[in-house]
Amino acid sequence: MSSIWSHNISVSVFGESHGPAIGVVMDNLPAGEYIDMEKLMEFMARRAPKKNKTSTQRRESDMPQILSGFLNGRTTGTPLCAFINNNDTHSQDYNNIARLARPGHADYTGALRYGGFNDVRGGGHFSGRLTAPLCFAGAVAGQILEKRGIYTGAHILEIHGIKDDAIDNVSVTREQVVEMRKAEFPVLNVEKGKEMIADIEKAFMCQDSVGGIVECVSVNVPAGIGSPIFDGLENSIASLIFGIPAVKGLEFGVGFNCAKMLGSENNDEFYVNDAGHIVTRTNNHGGILGGISSGMPISLRVAFKPTPSISKPQHTVDMKNMSNDVIQVKGRHDPCIVPRAVPVVEAAVNIALLSHMLDYPNF
Amino acid sequence: MSSIWSHNISVSVFGESHGPAIGVVMDNLPAGEYIDMEKLMEFMARRAPKKNKTSTQRRESDMPQILSGFLNGRTTGTPLCAFINNNDTHSQDYNNIARLARPGHADYTGALRYGGFNDVRGGGHFSGRLTAPLCFAGAVAGQILEKRGIYTGAHILEIHGIKDDAIDNVSVTREQVVEMRKAEFPVLNVEKGKEMIADIEKAFMCQDSVGGIVECVSVNVPAGIGSPIFDGLENSIASLIFGIPAVKGLEFGVGFNCAKMLGSENNDEFYVNDAGHIVTRTNNHGGILGGISSGMPISLRVAFKPTPSISKPQHTVDMKNMSNDVIQVKGRHDPCIVPRAVPVVEAAVNIALLSHMLDYPNF
Amino acid sequence: MSSIWSHNISVSVFGESHGPAIGVVMDNLPAGEYIDMEKLMEFMARRAPKKNKTSTQRRESDMPQILSGFLNGRTTGTPLCAFINNNDTHSQDYNNIARLARPGHADYTGALRYGGFNDVRGGGHFSGRLTAPLCFAGAVAGQILEKRGIYTGAHILEIHGIKDDAIDNVSVTREQVVEMRKAEFPVLNVEKGKEMIADIEKAFMCQDSVGGIVECVSVNVPAGIGSPIFDGLENSIASLIFGIPAVKGLEFGVGFNCAKMLGSENNDEFYVNDAGHIVTRTNNHGGILGGISSGMPISLRVAFKPTPSISKPQHTVDMKNMSNDVIQVKGRHDPCIVPRAVPVVEAAVNIALLSHMLDYPNF
Amino acid sequence: MSSIWSHNISVSVFGESHGPAIGVVMDNLPAGEYIDMEKLMEFMARRAPKKNKTSTQRRESDMPQILSGFLNGRTTGTPLCAFINNNDTHSQDYNNIARLARPGHADYTGALRYGGFNDVRGGGHFSGRLTAPLCFAGAVAGQILEKRGIYTGAHILEIHGIKDDAIDNVSVTREQVVEMRKAEFPVLNVEKGKEMIADIEKAFMCQDSVGGIVECVSVNVPAGIGSPIFDGLENSIASLIFGIPAVKGLEFGVGFNCAKMLGSENNDEFYVNDAGHIVTRTNNHGGILGGISSGMPISLRVAFKPTPSISKPQHTVDMKNMSNDVIQVKGRHDPCIVPRAVPVVEAAVNIALLSHMLDYPNF
Repeated sequence: MSSIWSHNISVSVFGESHGPAIGVVMDNLPAGEYIDMEKLMEFMARRAPKKNKTSTQRRESDMPQILSGFLNGRTTGTPLCAFINNNDTHSQDYNNIARLARPGHADYTGALRYGGFNDVRGGGHFSGRLTAPLCFAGAVAGQILEKRGIYTGAHILEIHGIKDDAIDNVSVTREQVVEMRKAEFPVLNVEKGKEMIADIEKAFMCQDSVGGIVECVSVNVPAGIGSPIFDGLENSIASLIFGIPAVKGLEFGVGFNCAKMLGSENNDEFYVNDAGHIVTRTNNHGGILGGISSGMPISLRVAFKPTPSISKPQHTVDMKNMSNDVIQVKGRHDPCIVPRAVPVVEAAVNIALLSHMLDYPNF
Repeated sequence: MSSIWSHNISVSVFGESHGPAIGVVMDNLPAGEYIDMEKLMEFMARRAPKKNKTSTQRRESDMPQILSGFLNGRTTGTPLCAFINNNDTHSQDYNNIARLARPGHADYTGALRYGGFNDVRGGGHFSGRLTAPLCFAGAVAGQILEKRGIYTGAHILEIHGIKDDAIDNVSVTREQVVEMRKAEFPVLNVEKGKEMIADIEKAFMCQDSVGGIVECVSVNVPAGIGSPIFDGLENSIASLIFGIPAVKGLEFGVGFNCAKMLGSENNDEFYVNDAGHIVTRTNNHGGILGGISSGMPISLRVAFKPTPSISKPQHTVDMKNMSNDVIQVKGRHDPCIVPRAVPVVEAAVNIALLSHMLDYPNF
Repeated sequence: MSSIWSHNISVSVFGESHGPAIGVVMDNLPAGEYIDMEKLMEFMARRAPKKNKTSTQRRESDMPQILSGFLNGRTTGTPLCAFINNNDTHSQDYNNIARLARPGHADYTGALRYGGFNDVRGGGHFSGRLTAPLCFAGAVAGQILEKRGIYTGAHILEIHGIKDDAIDNVSVTREQVVEMRKAEFPVLNVEKGKEMIADIEKAFMCQDSVGGIVECVSVNVPAGIGSPIFDGLENSIASLIFGIPAVKGLEFGVGFNCAKMLGSENNDEFYVNDAGHIVTRTNNHGGILGGISSGMPISLRVAFKPTPSISKPQHTVDMKNMSNDVIQVKGRHDPCIVPRAVPVVEAAVNIALLSHMLDYPNF
Repeated sequence: MSSIWSHNISVSVFGESHGPAIGVVMDNLPAGEYIDMEKLMEFMARRAPKKNKTSTQRRESDMPQILSGFLNGRTTGTPLCAFINNNDTHSQDYNNIARLARPGHADYTGALRYGGFNDVRGGGHFSGRLTAPLCFAGAVAGQILEKRGIYTGAHILEIHGIKDDAIDNVSVTREQVVEMRKAEFPVLNVEKGKEMIADIEKAFMCQDSVGGIVECVSVNVPAGIGSPIFDGLENSIASLIFGIPAVKGLEFGVGFNCAKMLGSENNDEFYVNDAGHIVTRTNNHGGILGGISSGMPISLRVAFKPTPSISKPQHTVDMKNMSNDVIQVKGRHDPCIVPRAVPVVEAAVNIALLSHMLDYPNF
């Protein structure tokens, strides 16, 4: 199903950018899990637009209302539904979308797919706003995982060619993950972060936008979670990550760099550490072998394209008249979605991990 | 399910490397589709080991036997099952696997996942040999797609840092795709191919292995195929591609390079071409926008790690005694799996595309 | 997933009887389908409690609010979410449920399943009130089917041993189906209906309840819809019908009576009718052969147990103290749910048929 | 998918009656489960044709060959594939099926569904022979359940109006279940069994056939297994049971008789028994409340229509010429399939129960 991710748990996302509301139904959550709503709101706030030039000028009130599946602060085990009202919508900004296909957007492909009946205002169901309910689901999953010691965090690895330091995916600790998530602008190297901010602001001034890479890590995932072939951790994570608008690539561990390596360089040798656990000295495999967790930190990187909505005039077509035309996309848009995408990547990883963890004996 | 990929069609892969047989069940195929078995065998032969130093010295007889779902040269519409006997297996080569975890393999993670009951000989169900039934399924899907004009082909883009020319994903034609698949060593630039072969042979001499990248393209996919969020073409293709052993990364269109680009560079402007169709001048989006095909060639790249089986001694652990040890992996292994992976990537893409095409009106 | 029915379309039901709201998400609906909201409310009103002694005295405001997937009176093709607020809830009536297991209810089994964390007020997620969102989904599906000429209607066949006339499942017409749905108390034989009403009222006076059977028929389903083995029309309908609380049996065509028949009696002989169509003279097969529609009316019967909530004192256990006890179920309950179950059965059948119809060429 | 049942485990059935082979793939079985192949063959022998007049005169060699997922007598945890060769096929008996639709068979509906490309010999994929791989899967599931104390057995409750004694679904023990399965002709009342056999033989002499009912019970299923709404035990069992050819009805516990009862009669009162467990004095609910097991025996009944293949001449249509015609079905057929259906019903219940049991803590 298009908007239902279904594995041991399911996450069903609904809504359009300028419709009455967006939301999510989570099915098959474990019962009796305490969810701290304040922490959940903090998580979602990381995705919300910021009050500065790196982000959209829209004010989104992303306060989720829970309709079911939650009682006395705990999951009931039956479907948990939450929705977020769409308040601050300026549909007049999008009046000509139905006619002119915005480059880099799904206006053209969506019109074909739904015979022109889909809600095109603000991108409709294709809007990045749909990542808000995904974040809600990921925040719930994340809190359940953290009770079992599993922490997931991400940072901006690169924006428009400017690179942050990479996470050390062998030694990274839970504390470092938590720290990483606290940053206003989520980078490890503050100086690099300042460069990125300056670059984003410059793109904004130039009516342009920039792309980037998010790096994510999960620590304390027990070894033995996942399955071979089509139900590996990579498959599950990928099926969620490619559900985030603007994602163009995904790699685990050493990723595409493995194409430059020898087997003797890439193979991570096993050894028994002082605590008596089997671990590896390096982590080129990104914590996953044969689709199954090795106990090493799970590490991955996700490429995000530059925000397709730019104010610069662009050539495009008038879909009604089948003629060439020029569009100048108005409205308020992020010149770079990467900072706000950081918790979205964490959310996707949390959902995949919780789903596989439900198979873990003594979960 | 671990080894069932299920969408509009399903592909259920079974078998272990050294068990009686490996095979596949395809469910919900359209009825009445003519399958040319000779062409199918040619497709599978591209995955089979070659009689040279770039490939394993094993002789695999990959002749599939069809048990059901196929009559008078055509699909019946009911489940199509085919299997391939495992003949040439030297299990003694793998006697110590159950004890010593081979670095880069799923021996350790698989033992945890299945409590030590899984068949470890030759990697068992984790073996790259399981890509043979995947190729069978992909060959069937490919023939059905080609009847509708949709052609998919791949080549080696990079091996151990040596780069082939990239496919021009705007202008590529069906004829070029077909031509690309004919090559003994599938590269566009023959000179680069020779360099790669020399490098693979060198790795083999050094008891080592090398990784690489496969680039794949599909032409004539009609615009409007796919869905947003979790049922996009990227999600479907990803869920299959990460089912191929040794894959560490996947990117579409411009992929990870989008992290270095401006929106104005990355956006592909639309125009109406001479034939009156809406197309784009560039194809950074890789033929997919919002999870839905744009009508432009679908293009993607897949990173394969170096074959983990190398003859060089490696440090590892004895899982029984929980002690450090050294392993020297014997047996016959490909010093580089990338050449044989080329049709496997095509197979995965064919399966995903056929599945989505079944939603296409007038398929 | 517990509360998601997933086939070509999916229906995800959420909510608890006394929580903030109940609702439904429908995924993969065809785009551009006009839905008449007034007709939809009429359908749902048939399930709503009546203002008489045959039904609960609660006033339920079942006005659904649509959050997504619906624009300008038409489906958009993206997920359609609707919810219904729970207003008239008297939770104090259910205060001792957490302790005393009501016979015939899921209090005991639900407490085990969810470790005591589920919402038990009013039966929580197990409540018959969850059939309201199912009716919403069935009403949407029904309107889409009626555009293609397919009409589904049901009536009360039996209540507490009092039998209505059976539908003639060979000759039944669309007009008869529509007429059947208009009745205040849905029976074919008005006199028998009066007997049933009197019997229900008597049960109510005796602090008791009664069970019954609903018979349902669908006309104009084209021949060739469905699949063998696990994806037949019977399987799909059954998987939905057994999702309705209180259902204890389901039969198609001649049903359990086939156990008394000879093959020569039961087989429905084919002939070519005056219109040149292949039909059968009798319809013991209930319009389905090998899981696939034959073009004859689809006919089925569903058995509903007497409402388990009765005011009579009953023996039960105190689950906290593990001691025997007596319970007197208070609150307002239907002495017979069968009349209100009639549109719920239609809804389930509509959902199954629409889902299979999406495979129909030229749908 | 048509021939894949997918829940916590999946069962994928393939093959046609007169093709090379029929078989099954089971995915996600627990690893390390010992399967006694002799016991498994005994189970399958109960479905095999008998050497007497109550059954078909065909000799079927139903010896399954295992291709994967099984090593050293135990499941490996990866897909278990088994197939059975089709040896004793007389395709000339079915030569005119493609033209004349056999009443009560899927010849007409299957031809429409698959555009005439399906294998019609012997009913093809619609054949009752496909219950052999289902029995294989059910036998595997049953052995795994029996290790946990859960036993399932069935008997013939009724044939052509002649009724066996019913199982006492409150007091039935594991020993009684095992005993029930040993009978050559599976009834509780031997005298009634003789009447049934005489009746079947009479039908055979008259070139006719008879229908019947199978009653099944499962003991020692722990309380708390299953889920509400669409993932209840009834839904799962139903989705499998209606996958058995010739099934026309299914009821749980008191079933359709609940339509004649008062709530005070039908409700099963709870009490704490001497062992300190919560049980019910009666079992009208058939061991399932709200889709979840109560700990009482699970009991159900399945109606089978008379074998549609009868030698008597029957009116039908010539599908090629669209003309009325007469058919005399030749070949060897069971005059009553109910005796052979008994283990098939057990198999379906075993599969459903094992799948739900995998959610049970400490399975």
